[in-house]
Amino acid sequence: MSDVLKQLEAVLEERKNADPDSSYVASLHSKGLETILKKVGEEATETVIAAVGGDDGQIVYETADLWFHTMVMLSHKGISHEAVLSELERRFGLSGIEEKASRKG
Amino acid sequence: MSDVLKQLEAVLEERKNADPDSSYVASLHSKGLETILKKVGEEATETVIAAVGGDDGQIVYETADLWFHTMVMLSHKGISHEAVLSELERRFGLSGIEEKASRKG
Amino acid sequence: MSDVLKQLEAVLEERKNADPDSSYVASLHSKGLETILKKVGEEATETVIAAVGGDDGQIVYETADLWFHTMVMLSHKGISHEAVLSELERRFGLSGIEEKASRKG
Amino acid sequence: MSDVLKQLEAVLEERKNADPDSSYVASLHSKGLETILKKVGEEATETVIAAVGGDDGQIVYETADLWFHTMVMLSHKGISHEAVLSELERRFGLSGIEEKASRKG
Repeated sequence: MSDVLKQLEAVLEERKNADPDSSYVASLHSKGLETILKKVGEEATETVIAAVGGDDGQIVYETADLWFHTMVMLSHKGISHEAVLSELERRFGLSGIEEKASRKG
Repeated sequence: MSDVLKQLEAVLEERKNADPDSSYVASLHSKGLETILKKVGEEATETVIAAVGGDDGQIVYETADLWFHTMVMLSHKGISHEAVLSELERRFGLSGIEEKASRKG
Repeated sequence: MSDVLKQLEAVLEERKNADPDSSYVASLHSKGLETILKKVGEEATETVIAAVGGDDGQIVYETADLWFHTMVMLSHKGISHEAVLSELERRFGLSGIEEKASRKG
Repeated sequence: MSDVLKQLEAVLEERKNADPDSSYVASLHSKGLETILKKVGEEATETVIAAVGGDDGQIVYETADLWFHTMVMLSHKGISHEAVLSELERRFGLSGIEEKASRKG
């Protein structure tokens, strides 16, 4: 389970230059950053809607969509998801200790 | 690196019932689902803003904030992040094969 | 200029029961509240993107899209946009006086 | 009722240079565009939450918040809300006739 994001990143990298007509991921990249970001905004809204009124299955489905499109955005910007995991690790001291005292409200 | 989300989930679980005055996570839970969802919407917007105009560090920071608050939402609903990873695995055949043909546009 | 929202509300009301195949507004209503709300979320994101990086024309275009879809949402819920204007009037004392002291941060 | 947005625009203009400590509007401007856009994203999310689960009063309240913060964004960019109303008028032929055929899906 723990390597799903790593595997997804590899798949996304591979499809970055695929034919936009046959790959959804390639079509997102060919349409550009704004299209990808609109999807991030749209999927965030769908996640919120699911969380207010949906069942667990819908929440899982929409959250997967949201994480997926943020992964595509990271890929588009040439940033590895591991940088995000490192930031979470650093912030929450996951090798370690305490919720960051300076955590913004 | 691969276990960061798992460790984060454990930390979130532990803090769910902490003192809202000393833990940001506990304060989110005590304020309730709507407050958590507002943060998801806000952090999605900040991620979009960072991706349009920010540097890689800001994008990483805001994406971490977005993932973090979706993890808090999942925790609030009693859903493990592993269900989200399973959905991504299923959808992209990560043990396996092909981008889901029925992937919605 | 001042009656544009009033006229738009009348148009929206009229098209509520039009043929979904020939009217975008009717198609939104027939798809239901969630579809309308996804559009609100998407257009809010597009407004943010335009404001960060776009020119005035794009900002105007996307803000019009956002207001339009909130008007469709109000219409779907059977709420007049005048209730929203009244709330703004009340809050800012527009017949009147002072920014509401209790305005939340 | 029809002049509420016009009056609100005048109030916003007046408060643009007020003391950030005594005026919420001035504090938004002094914090800058990103802060204003985060509020737009947050209020869009709150509008969606209210529309899914709230009563009419909450929907009106949150939509007013959303329109208000888009008005502040326009003011920050030096754009009159009348440009947005003109765009809606043009698009829907409100002096006039038909829903723009080229209306994007």
